[in-house]
Amino acid sequence: MSLPRAILFDVFGTLVDWRGSVAAGLAAYGAARGIEADWFAITDAWRGAYQPSMARVRRGEQPWTNLDDLHRDALGALLPKFGVEVPDRDLDELVGLWHRLTPWPDSVAGLLRLKRHFIIASLSNGHVALQIALAKHTGFAWDMIFGADLYRHYKPDQETYLGACGFLGLAPGQVMLAAAHNDDLKAARAFGLQTGFVSRPMEYGAPDARARPDQKWEVVADSVEDLAAKLGLG
Amino acid sequence: MSLPRAILFDVFGTLVDWRGSVAAGLAAYGAARGIEADWFAITDAWRGAYQPSMARVRRGEQPWTNLDDLHRDALGALLPKFGVEVPDRDLDELVGLWHRLTPWPDSVAGLLRLKRHFIIASLSNGHVALQIALAKHTGFAWDMIFGADLYRHYKPDQETYLGACGFLGLAPGQVMLAAAHNDDLKAARAFGLQTGFVSRPMEYGAPDARARPDQKWEVVADSVEDLAAKLGLG
Repeated sequence: MSLPRAILFDVFGTLVDWRGSVAAGLAAYGAARGIEADWFAITDAWRGAYQPSMARVRRGEQPWTNLDDLHRDALGALLPKFGVEVPDRDLDELVGLWHRLTPWPDSVAGLLRLKRHFIIASLSNGHVALQIALAKHTGFAWDMIFGADLYRHYKPDQETYLGACGFLGLAPGQVMLAAAHNDDLKAARAFGLQTGFVSRPMEYGAPDARARPDQKWEVVADSVEDLAAKLGLG
Repeated sequence: MSLPRAILFDVFGTLVDWRGSVAAGLAAYGAARGIEADWFAITDAWRGAYQPSMARVRRGEQPWTNLDDLHRDALGALLPKFGVEVPDRDLDELVGLWHRLTPWPDSVAGLLRLKRHFIIASLSNGHVALQIALAKHTGFAWDMIFGADLYRHYKPDQETYLGACGFLGLAPGQVMLAAAHNDDLKAARAFGLQTGFVSRPMEYGAPDARARPDQKWEVVADSVEDLAAKLGLG
């Protein structure tokens, strides 16, 4: 394996603890209004709507819709099933929780370390505005943000992986995708990118088999710091 | 005037001394090979080809072509007129000078100061790859890079100004363009953006009338630090 010139990062789950952050934000919202509910279950249901909603856009059944709007539609539909009613205007506030997620402890420092030797960029299904807000909240020192709205395609559509390589002016083989999700890496590999698996066993709240690599990825790491070390950065 | 949420920056001339940097790079190239020439005149001629070459793309006479390729074509055509011959492969090296320009002394610190309170992003006719290289070389701490290749349009086409606002999820009136060039600001204002003039009297090597504001821009500053001060950042 020759070292990549650029490393693209999946964000939700790979760099940030979306589940803990969103559940905490929902709980704080509920506590301030005296609403009781199973916020973790709501968070899981909300995230559960994520792939199906993007799949509708990918299949062309729905015109391009960014993640804020997909999140709002999904939350509006699921809250009543949990016995929770919120005014429409509060849906925007809650959708904003996805702009203020908490990074895993190694993410910020690991990215800074990699940035000295590689181009580091996000490759997320979040749109540019969401990702800018998230980077300002967390301190992710991106060289570039690749948002799904740049190509109006969601991963794993090839337009995302190859679109980012094109903007970087690099061949896919000069670029690595780092992600906590086998499916994301599988698509990246199919389009010629190098792959780095970052295990995040607590993404779903308890140790989970999805945090194990299911193929021989070029690099397997248990943190962004570990990824940097395995790419030769002492 | 209400404060903008985001400030977009023109880059060449506004944040970096393209003329001094390119002439120095050409001179170093020549010195290493015993080539003598008027490197400042070549630099000015090279930059002189910039607007006409982008205009051909804007008018659709030439398909989308990024700045590296426009620069290469222009340099290849003009060097013989200055009695300079270079091998084709060296043209790439020389085109790379535009990836390693020297910032004006206030640019890096001024951007960092603004970044704490605003979204800061480039809005340059440079493509994403060029701008990533330039940001890594200079230390520009962008929240986002808007390259002409994202929309395949060059300024002053409206797709650039309004495209960036769209990706930011902001109305044009919530966004300021900061630039050293009246024409750039004129276009931004026509599309509804706020405008900040940053005077760079030495852009062309000697005090120049183009460094004076020719309209009443919302802010007129003589450095990025001064722009920050005038936007209320003590």
